[in-house]
Amino acid sequence: MAVGLSDPDEILPVAGIKLASCAAGIKKNGKHDLVVIVVDEGATCAATFTQNAFCAAPVTLAKKHLSQNTPRALLINAGNANAGTGETGMQNAIQSCVWLSEKLQCLTDQVLPFSTGVIGEQLPMPVLNAGINQVVKNISEDSWLLAAKGIMTTDTVAKAISRTLVLDGQKITISGIAKGSGMICPDMATMLSFIATDANVETDFLQQCLSDVVEQSFNSITVDGDTSTNDACVLIATAKANNRQLNKASEDASLFVDELNEVCQFLAQAIIRDAEGATKFVTVTVSQAQSTAEAKNVAYTIAHSPLVKTALFASDPNWGRILAAVGRAGVEQLDINNVNLYLDDVCIVRNGSVADDYSEEKGQTVMNQEEITIRVELGGGNDSATIWTSDLSHEYVRINAEYRS
Amino acid sequence: MAVGLSDPDEILPVAGIKLASCAAGIKKNGKHDLVVIVVDEGATCAATFTQNAFCAAPVTLAKKHLSQNTPRALLINAGNANAGTGETGMQNAIQSCVWLSEKLQCLTDQVLPFSTGVIGEQLPMPVLNAGINQVVKNISEDSWLLAAKGIMTTDTVAKAISRTLVLDGQKITISGIAKGSGMICPDMATMLSFIATDANVETDFLQQCLSDVVEQSFNSITVDGDTSTNDACVLIATAKANNRQLNKASEDASLFVDELNEVCQFLAQAIIRDAEGATKFVTVTVSQAQSTAEAKNVAYTIAHSPLVKTALFASDPNWGRILAAVGRAGVEQLDINNVNLYLDDVCIVRNGSVADDYSEEKGQTVMNQEEITIRVELGGGNDSATIWTSDLSHEYVRINAEYRS
Repeated sequence: MAVGLSDPDEILPVAGIKLASCAAGIKKNGKHDLVVIVVDEGATCAATFTQNAFCAAPVTLAKKHLSQNTPRALLINAGNANAGTGETGMQNAIQSCVWLSEKLQCLTDQVLPFSTGVIGEQLPMPVLNAGINQVVKNISEDSWLLAAKGIMTTDTVAKAISRTLVLDGQKITISGIAKGSGMICPDMATMLSFIATDANVETDFLQQCLSDVVEQSFNSITVDGDTSTNDACVLIATAKANNRQLNKASEDASLFVDELNEVCQFLAQAIIRDAEGATKFVTVTVSQAQSTAEAKNVAYTIAHSPLVKTALFASDPNWGRILAAVGRAGVEQLDINNVNLYLDDVCIVRNGSVADDYSEEKGQTVMNQEEITIRVELGGGNDSATIWTSDLSHEYVRINAEYRS
Repeated sequence: MAVGLSDPDEILPVAGIKLASCAAGIKKNGKHDLVVIVVDEGATCAATFTQNAFCAAPVTLAKKHLSQNTPRALLINAGNANAGTGETGMQNAIQSCVWLSEKLQCLTDQVLPFSTGVIGEQLPMPVLNAGINQVVKNISEDSWLLAAKGIMTTDTVAKAISRTLVLDGQKITISGIAKGSGMICPDMATMLSFIATDANVETDFLQQCLSDVVEQSFNSITVDGDTSTNDACVLIATAKANNRQLNKASEDASLFVDELNEVCQFLAQAIIRDAEGATKFVTVTVSQAQSTAEAKNVAYTIAHSPLVKTALFASDPNWGRILAAVGRAGVEQLDINNVNLYLDDVCIVRNGSVADDYSEEKGQTVMNQEEITIRVELGGGNDSATIWTSDLSHEYVRINAEYRS
């Protein structure tokens, strides 16, 4: 069902990373629901987490552990978000780290916990304990695809990608997995992404790379504006490749950032392509803004508009809805006589009014496509932003209305 | 189909106000689409307009005329919004005022024009001219209900109300009409409201009353966060009653404001009850906030969440979605351990975690109702806000996806 996306073929192993996945029984349907990612000593790690004030216990604990130590393992369960679970939830998150650290003979704070699934229910601890005992038996360098499937909740397609580059004559691999049906469901979906590279990267620079790249990928997608209590993205650099340690002064730093950006953009866009009920993959680009933040705000206002989204679903070139969204986005000193609007390369609005050469047929041709670009020129500055979104379909309402029934 | 709302019975005439409505032929379906409200000399007038930067030609012109003169007539057409229509649209708006002013023997800038309907199409000027010639023949003090029907677009129920009070021993009447299926459709719905009273009210105070009351009524409702290019609310005081002129220093000013508030809240809530596809009427109250703006922002974040709205449609007490919306509303220094959440009087979350005495059955009982109150206590201050919203149903998607097909 995903728009222009199918299951990935091959994911390259990353030296220093082993993974495993199993069906612990947290999900009721017998599918894989527990994943462990084991990291060799000597790695560096960066991470970004949800900004939601109601963040889940594992998010709070993962942040704490990351501030204290370098992770040796990531423990991810699907089927239960361990969110809204109070002090018991925190104790359960700690206990799960204790269990895995005993198996792997590392410290408790070298384990980062992640959970995704239903909010407000306690983790089934005996089931989780048995699952941890089982999953550690299967760890292997080649289990990336299994891990990508093990972290899925309502996803219909596994999301994974590998890229390679050369640094100091050394072949470098970046592999990543992600899950999420587009943040559309804070009690079920949750965006999680785990990325690893064998490059040797200095910690502060690794965090800077991740933060910059996330801003243009995972923080540039929306299905419905709902952000999860559990969102997280982790980037591990194992330093197994023999490149000189990369830092912000390195000449070829941008090579690494570019490939990392490719990985994150692919994974972020994959989440939108697989958004619940999505029938369209829509790029929204806003340019000639007074700041990047302004451009992104206008783009999100368009992307969040239920009216724009239902028009996209209907393949209806109903440009008045886009214009109305631009008009209410709160742009300071917006001169509507400078605003242009395009669907792909078709100019619909020029200088604030319908373009003389626009016809309904031209707009309809673009709207009939599965992939569409909405482009707005604000005529006020030189900054721009691009985000990706999906449409609002009957299927979206059905999935989200009927989920628990 | 409206939730708890049927067609109004009787609307009291207001001395100094005459109205008329006719089927001019702007709407294709033969329904009434042209309304004139004629105001006797000596009235005062206040108005609020859409904040959308892409406001329609009639909005720009109405603001200009109001700044120049006191209105003697309001000209309202449904079926065409005269928005996104450029210079031609402005000339057409001016011409329509010229035509009506000639008929009524007043000045052009004593006519305020209002349009609601499809964006991006020019007004059918010969049709409009013939309609104006026809409609002025029918003006009468008793045509409030006809006018309420004449301004409808996708509304299923006419929205009108009268209230009375006594000032200085004089009986005062306030009658008002509104249209809109909940701002859900900037190219079709548009919120318009016209209210008149026979009270004698000083102009500046009248504007202050209207602005204050609109903030708690028409600016406290949402279906989907989309605001129209044409929204307007006009309040006329004809001064035909023999009360001493009311101003902000008047002892009984609050009596007038209270009744005006009742009128506006009824009309605003009627728009939500009649929102396209609505099956629920939902009150969202946020208290213990650090400011009214913060409280309103949290309330709107909940009310705009497609996940909360689909859960409401499904009568699913899926409180995790409400909590997640509160968490991403950007409240500064939110301590989640102080947050309480109620559905009607059922406490779901106490101090940030599921309440001990909460059960799914209790939540389900409230959710099964047609009218529901979501109440959030932020535990951070003393300010509060209440807004009204509807759910997100299959019917919403169908109406907005299929409208032009």
